[in-house]
Amino acid sequence: MNAVGATTGTHAGESPVAMLGLGAMGGVLAGVLLDAGRDVTVWNRSAGRDEALVARGARRAAGVREAVLAAPTVVACLYDHASVHETLDPVAGDLRGRTLVNLTTTTPNESRQVAAWASQHGAEFLDGAIMATPDMIGTPGGSILYSGSRDAFDHGRGILDVWATSTFEGTDPGRASLLDLAMLSGMYTMFAGFLHGAAMVGADGVSARDFAARATPFLAAMTQAFAADAETVDGGDYTTVSQSLEWSDLGHLVRASEEQGVDPGPIAAVEALRRRQVDAGHGQDDFARIYESLRRR
Amino acid sequence: MNAVGATTGTHAGESPVAMLGLGAMGGVLAGVLLDAGRDVTVWNRSAGRDEALVARGARRAAGVREAVLAAPTVVACLYDHASVHETLDPVAGDLRGRTLVNLTTTTPNESRQVAAWASQHGAEFLDGAIMATPDMIGTPGGSILYSGSRDAFDHGRGILDVWATSTFEGTDPGRASLLDLAMLSGMYTMFAGFLHGAAMVGADGVSARDFAARATPFLAAMTQAFAADAETVDGGDYTTVSQSLEWSDLGHLVRASEEQGVDPGPIAAVEALRRRQVDAGHGQDDFARIYESLRRR
Repeated sequence: MNAVGATTGTHAGESPVAMLGLGAMGGVLAGVLLDAGRDVTVWNRSAGRDEALVARGARRAAGVREAVLAAPTVVACLYDHASVHETLDPVAGDLRGRTLVNLTTTTPNESRQVAAWASQHGAEFLDGAIMATPDMIGTPGGSILYSGSRDAFDHGRGILDVWATSTFEGTDPGRASLLDLAMLSGMYTMFAGFLHGAAMVGADGVSARDFAARATPFLAAMTQAFAADAETVDGGDYTTVSQSLEWSDLGHLVRASEEQGVDPGPIAAVEALRRRQVDAGHGQDDFARIYESLRRR
Repeated sequence: MNAVGATTGTHAGESPVAMLGLGAMGGVLAGVLLDAGRDVTVWNRSAGRDEALVARGARRAAGVREAVLAAPTVVACLYDHASVHETLDPVAGDLRGRTLVNLTTTTPNESRQVAAWASQHGAEFLDGAIMATPDMIGTPGGSILYSGSRDAFDHGRGILDVWATSTFEGTDPGRASLLDLAMLSGMYTMFAGFLHGAAMVGADGVSARDFAARATPFLAAMTQAFAADAETVDGGDYTTVSQSLEWSDLGHLVRASEEQGVDPGPIAAVEALRRRQVDAGHGQDDFARIYESLRRR
């Protein structure tokens, strides 16, 4: 992954990078660029986050403007959408002709808003959604999804590929964020389901470790069923039934959770989605029909 | 798996079996016993469910009593806990000296209640929780957890092992059901998380099939993180942080879901658990601390 950094030259891929935001993720992103031999200028809102990076060769910028002016590629990895504007609004006029890569976690609509704003100020824009924890940055296991300017992606590969496996998801600047958040929604919901199960058995003295040893292979195997559910959802015909909504009554699960003294929140949310379809007369349809409860439009 | 059925002899494992309940699962359970050469008497509350089985060699019982009297092992695979009592209460006096294997899906407390009831009537009791869909019965991929009488389990292996991989989980009759329901809770919650993500991207025209191709390997890989969460939960020390509750703010996920026109129910339930811990002042602790939100006791 770091092969690019090992080469020398003056092509576009080797141009300086400005890194705004040196939190857990931003600090690592800057660090692996330094390891790859890149010229990196760093800035962070609060002081003291840049010292280790400066010791590794980073240039310290006294302010956001100094950082932006130091590089044709400006990378933002900030707290949230609001901090992107707080940080960049004052230097909007300095962005013309530069590329802004926003790795801050935002919603799809927020990504689109920053893209439009950057365009107004004459900057190329690329939104990145990081599918990795900081320790995965700089390894092939890390993945970052990008969307927005195809040119910015193509010309930025010398930087992007140092961080992780880079994938371009399309010119809608919100697409990378959307895919990222949808997968994270699945992940956090799954973790909550695991911890809910662990709490249920924990009430009877079964260790979470014991439960994890059972649940890990079981849930990993069950992810294979997503494909069939997806076919059903895409086809829009829920009458070919692998498991009916009526047969999938989760009422006893909610009841068992309560009997164990465990908040049934996560499974009660699923039961509510199921119940809505059964009450609408679709009890004989496939369980995948809870997709229709989720879709408000 | 069916090796036992291929042998001949008169040991206990070859004794007749009475099968009460011939729904999707009960019918298959009876069928694989017939395939294994067992003497099976079948009964179902509503008529007509036994014809194919009788054609395959099953004995038809005119009533529950006739079925019970036909075999030392009585297997119940009924709709729910209430139907177990509706079916067996009238023949309670005929259960003495027999073994009752209850494969009906019940809560742990309901399993314990049936165990106590069976014991009062002089029957050995084994509760079974089926970790399989009907098509997995009779294959090594199917798994059934048992708890209750160790003797009933040991002497019943000739029957149980025809169905699936059999595991004895302890003498608490509620244990098999508890483990089953806890794993199913994780599974259904995970499915809801997948369908929620699919609905989020679906609102922007991404197919569920495309999303499944991404989410399947991602979530399967993420199940590997259960072990670390379990260590944290068992240790009870949430201050060693892999990812803090504050950093895991799911508010933007809920917001993005709403912006996509998708009911945020499943992820909002997780956010509520997270928020409760943050509000209690534990924002710097590990995400696994949502376990404490789940545990009411």
